[in-house]
Amino acid sequence: MAGWSPSQVLSGPRARRIQKSLYNLQMTVICMFVTVVMLRGMLGAGKFGTPNQDLDEIRNHLAHRDRSTRTMMEFTGSKTDDEAEGGDSSRWLLQKDFDPVKYFDPETVHHTLGEHISDWDEQRAAFMAKNKGANQTNSGKARTLLVSGSQPKPCDNPMGDYFLLKNLKNKVDYCRLHDIDIFYNMAHMDLKMSGFWAKLPLLRKLLLSHPDVEWIWWMDSDAFFTDMKFELPMENYENYNMVVHGWYNMIYEKKSWIGLNTGSFLIRNCQWTLDILDAWAPFGPNGKPRTEAGKLFTKYLQGRPEFEADDQSALIYLLLSQREKWSEKTYLESSFFLHGYWVILVENFEKMMDKYHPGLGDERWPFVTHFVGCKPCHGSSGDYSAERCAKQMERAFNFADNQVLEAYGYVHPNLHTTAVTKLPGGSSSKTKSSADQPILRGGYS
Amino acid sequence: MAGWSPSQVLSGPRARRIQKSLYNLQMTVICMFVTVVMLRGMLGAGKFGTPNQDLDEIRNHLAHRDRSTRTMMEFTGSKTDDEAEGGDSSRWLLQKDFDPVKYFDPETVHHTLGEHISDWDEQRAAFMAKNKGANQTNSGKARTLLVSGSQPKPCDNPMGDYFLLKNLKNKVDYCRLHDIDIFYNMAHMDLKMSGFWAKLPLLRKLLLSHPDVEWIWWMDSDAFFTDMKFELPMENYENYNMVVHGWYNMIYEKKSWIGLNTGSFLIRNCQWTLDILDAWAPFGPNGKPRTEAGKLFTKYLQGRPEFEADDQSALIYLLLSQREKWSEKTYLESSFFLHGYWVILVENFEKMMDKYHPGLGDERWPFVTHFVGCKPCHGSSGDYSAERCAKQMERAFNFADNQVLEAYGYVHPNLHTTAVTKLPGGSSSKTKSSADQPILRGGYS
Repeated sequence: MAGWSPSQVLSGPRARRIQKSLYNLQMTVICMFVTVVMLRGMLGAGKFGTPNQDLDEIRNHLAHRDRSTRTMMEFTGSKTDDEAEGGDSSRWLLQKDFDPVKYFDPETVHHTLGEHISDWDEQRAAFMAKNKGANQTNSGKARTLLVSGSQPKPCDNPMGDYFLLKNLKNKVDYCRLHDIDIFYNMAHMDLKMSGFWAKLPLLRKLLLSHPDVEWIWWMDSDAFFTDMKFELPMENYENYNMVVHGWYNMIYEKKSWIGLNTGSFLIRNCQWTLDILDAWAPFGPNGKPRTEAGKLFTKYLQGRPEFEADDQSALIYLLLSQREKWSEKTYLESSFFLHGYWVILVENFEKMMDKYHPGLGDERWPFVTHFVGCKPCHGSSGDYSAERCAKQMERAFNFADNQVLEAYGYVHPNLHTTAVTKLPGGSSSKTKSSADQPILRGGYS
Repeated sequence: MAGWSPSQVLSGPRARRIQKSLYNLQMTVICMFVTVVMLRGMLGAGKFGTPNQDLDEIRNHLAHRDRSTRTMMEFTGSKTDDEAEGGDSSRWLLQKDFDPVKYFDPETVHHTLGEHISDWDEQRAAFMAKNKGANQTNSGKARTLLVSGSQPKPCDNPMGDYFLLKNLKNKVDYCRLHDIDIFYNMAHMDLKMSGFWAKLPLLRKLLLSHPDVEWIWWMDSDAFFTDMKFELPMENYENYNMVVHGWYNMIYEKKSWIGLNTGSFLIRNCQWTLDILDAWAPFGPNGKPRTEAGKLFTKYLQGRPEFEADDQSALIYLLLSQREKWSEKTYLESSFFLHGYWVILVENFEKMMDKYHPGLGDERWPFVTHFVGCKPCHGSSGDYSAERCAKQMERAFNFADNQVLEAYGYVHPNLHTTAVTKLPGGSSSKTKSSADQPILRGGYS
């Protein structure tokens, strides 16, 4: 943390602007390139998505994996997952008369996520009339619920659970500092909406169950907050119902299937959101809908390899094919890293610490570092080596943790170590360091 | 969750009272018995305490353990923990002229936890004058910070991290529902205050850094919330500065070293608390102070085997030896399970679900189920078999998780399975079930 100063950041503003523009361009190019490389690799491994998304794959793995590396027992009930849902997951595979043209007709109404609701705005308004102030935090901010999750069972790779724990601690830290609630899911709520699709039924359920929540923020369990000071510029999103990391021209001009990333996005608690979830979900059910939608997306979107439908492609497809319905209220954020691709960020943490400071959120100090293509829960089945992923996840955690611990007078002497040392001027000195300032949640000082 | 009804709970109040008294007595006897058996076993295994307390032991284990079960790399920095603290941990061992009589004289002032502070009440009052309302939640409750933690490195036993993750999720759930903040610690802040003593420097640091927090609640990382509805009766603690699960007669009459349990306790943010931490900590430093204090406690307290000083014995010793200073402000809670011993609770979860309902907190529906004597992070080094501990921890988690999921229309069909099923009358029905009610934090309805 040592070495940066505000003066360094502000010196030579023009030079920095140019440098920044070049850097941004470079970033975007690298970002696109590595994303494609990475996705190709992942597809080769048979799946797409981050650990918590690969619930199906995990379930299969669990049935066959070598348990000899564990010293504790496997639980009973291991085989009841599918039974519990009544074998629903294979239902779609049996539909031999599935007609994709009819099924994907925008005029056809599916209610994949459950009973249709059309008066949610009125219901919420009635609720708010009875519970004034319930949708605000103590400090007057719109109440936000961060949602993440992972599989209900132990990871294949033992280190996976360790990183899930560290990731949850990281989210708990950010949320405590910024007065955000957390819901961490470990339940398979709808087995036919498996993998990267599991978030959709969960998000709908949470919207309806928490009328006091204004925004729900989905974040993958392999995405770390790396800027503990940065706050989302909510004022920019006033007229929007969804915020997702992405680029306008890559979606609307290039129809690129990596024009946005659904590893970290926000949705407003309103009827529009229920509607887009209703439009989004029908591409997700296991079997024909998902495989046929995969073909549709590959045909429609630029650069998309052939594989079953993923939620990211589906969202882009919706934005393009029903632009008048969804585009106006969807904010594509690229001014900071609402999702930041780890490969282009992690090697630069030390440079950032030298030159910049938390609170910037962009390439100078990334808000979110997302380990896309790592599969910490699966060991070697990811796109990058398990060693590289583990090393860099630990670094990202410590990079963030320093921003938490510094306020208490501690710091990791380097980003590779779990150890901490006392900062000079900590509690043993009369000098007022940052460690002697109260650590308050947004709104107080 | 099915089967209980309020009428069952209320029928035959007198019979139930008698039954309850007998049950309570039985519980207390069983509790004392198993605690002694368990502690004897643990001491045989060479250590005392719950997983997150055995930091020293863990560090030693880490150096020698077989890494072949892990597919990911060990981090660099593994050996820097001690170096980072400047080898402070062995300082006390070298003090050959250590005089226990002088050192433990109640008149001697030690400031083991750092610089003495005597005006904390004034400092806090000044802070509160500038930040009105900062010490209250949105719904007007005293702001409380739940503190827990675990070792910075992966567990020896891979299943350990999985249970730490589930435990943290369990705490996140309870805290979201009751508007409590969480601090989860994964840093060794003071290596000479290792093992069960690590919480003391951490708690002091947090008290001073969070003047907006009224109460800090320490809870071990092997203690699960099992009553998601129960709230602490804070009005009972108005005149107290510390709340700990324990029994008056067992401490003040029997001088029993298991008269209270420090796995879950609350402290008020005030000068008194800083003072008791200052009085408590000097028994903790590695080496002479800890070993000599161990001897002192064994001599002084009933039933205590010979082993180094633990924080629990030290607190009882303080309450007895400096009763006029600490006793008046220390509330011994035994009317519900602020800490509940898992062995006497976990087998009865199904019975509880049949007969009672959440919100009771006592033997009918325990508030906290604490896995004392299990060492999930260590595999087989605990007092009970790893299999039994894992099975029962999963059951305790699911018992609690049902109370969270039920509100969203889901339930674990039995306590052994990670799978969930939809409750009848959930989101697919027009009938208003509990799943259709908004889930709000305390204060709104």
